[in-house]
Amino acid sequence: MGQSPDANEVKEYTEFLDTLGEAAAEITLPMFKKSVDVINKGRKFALDYDPVTEADKLAEKVIRKLINQTYPDHNILGEELGTEKNSKSDYTWVIDPIDGTRAYICGIPTWGTLVALNDGIRPLIGMLDQPYLKERYVGTPDGAYLNGERINCRPCTVLSEATISTTDPTQFFACDEDLQAFNRVAIKARMVRNGYDCYAYAMIAAGFMDVVIESGLEAYDIQALIPLVEGAGGVVTNWTGGTAANGGQVVASATQELHEKILTLL
Amino acid sequence: MGQSPDANEVKEYTEFLDTLGEAAAEITLPMFKKSVDVINKGRKFALDYDPVTEADKLAEKVIRKLINQTYPDHNILGEELGTEKNSKSDYTWVIDPIDGTRAYICGIPTWGTLVALNDGIRPLIGMLDQPYLKERYVGTPDGAYLNGERINCRPCTVLSEATISTTDPTQFFACDEDLQAFNRVAIKARMVRNGYDCYAYAMIAAGFMDVVIESGLEAYDIQALIPLVEGAGGVVTNWTGGTAANGGQVVASATQELHEKILTLL
Repeated sequence: MGQSPDANEVKEYTEFLDTLGEAAAEITLPMFKKSVDVINKGRKFALDYDPVTEADKLAEKVIRKLINQTYPDHNILGEELGTEKNSKSDYTWVIDPIDGTRAYICGIPTWGTLVALNDGIRPLIGMLDQPYLKERYVGTPDGAYLNGERINCRPCTVLSEATISTTDPTQFFACDEDLQAFNRVAIKARMVRNGYDCYAYAMIAAGFMDVVIESGLEAYDIQALIPLVEGAGGVVTNWTGGTAANGGQVVASATQELHEKILTLL
Repeated sequence: MGQSPDANEVKEYTEFLDTLGEAAAEITLPMFKKSVDVINKGRKFALDYDPVTEADKLAEKVIRKLINQTYPDHNILGEELGTEKNSKSDYTWVIDPIDGTRAYICGIPTWGTLVALNDGIRPLIGMLDQPYLKERYVGTPDGAYLNGERINCRPCTVLSEATISTTDPTQFFACDEDLQAFNRVAIKARMVRNGYDCYAYAMIAAGFMDVVIESGLEAYDIQALIPLVEGAGGVVTNWTGGTAANGGQVVASATQELHEKILTLL
């Protein structure tokens, strides 16, 4: 494993996220709220429905092209087009061109383009770009930002005051243990919301929600969101307190104190 | 019961909806995505949490004031400030200043300002204004419009191709029969989404979703959305096929054919 990049490199990579966000938006935005062709990656039933749109694939292509042009030595891991292992570099760009494809095809602007740079140790910086809302969230080791303005989690430390969220409670139905664990937290929370995909993590970073609990995530679903929530003062781990960077069962909280209480319940 | 207004009157009232939408947005928009004081109208537990913000009350006040100034003879029914029965007029303005207060306080732009004009027989025209998205949906006897452009439901007639939605599946937990009825439909649908409040009805009218199923609604939750969905070619009734204007158990569908299939399952 190599060393983490210095401050100047981080700045350069963070500015490059803007380039990627703008390029992806040129694909995703004109196709949003239009009738789009949808391919089902899953099986026929509602629980297995896994749509992918032309916009997903085109956006990932344009992001990959820019990375390959600018940092040809770096590796790429993307949702739609897999892994490119170009070199012995420790750096990997992790891409979900449209996180929340279901929301995208329903006309709901809670989807986002996610890009992280993993330095071989951890996701160092991450972006959630929501072009319909003109909101670009960026997390760095120095803090989290919305359109260049610093954002922070709110200081919620008590579950009975917390707003918690999961994208889709039916994701837990496949595993009764996961559902029971989620419900142990949900029953004690002030408010439970569903259906917001990556945007729920942005709302933790911006101080409007307190917890997201999910299972069955992929690495590209979460890597960009870890520097975002942590840069805003929050915590992201798996359900046992280890790294969330590989996906699976993930919990994100606005504060360390709240996070520890939730891990105990999960 | 009086007669329905003629085309010129409908035009005048529809233009007045713009005035109301703009006035409400002046209250709701500056307070959105800010830390806001929240009063709980319900009890302490998550399932009973019923928040109301200062923005709710102020927005309803400004809407009421404009109606009283412009149509002093008309009646008003509002979520936060009750009923004003001013005269023997058949006309009642039905107001939900912020439908989706939970989304509002979570920073999620799926809330909306709802206003309907009920002519004593039915909700004649209705508006859903979402000022953060700069989207104003209006339903009239002549059609449904988004920012003045005609919109239409999509021609989905088969449940296995349908995207269905409910705001919060836990709303059904209080009634096991309702939950089972919802699940009979959900299991056959292509996709199920939660958490979008009034915005889900707008997505039916705009052709991006196909069904909304809810229970426990109030009249002010649904009256504005009936002319919107029906103006776009859809159908809104209660679960037994009667009027949805009084709230309760409501189902909205993109087509009559799909609607009938869902009523059979419910």
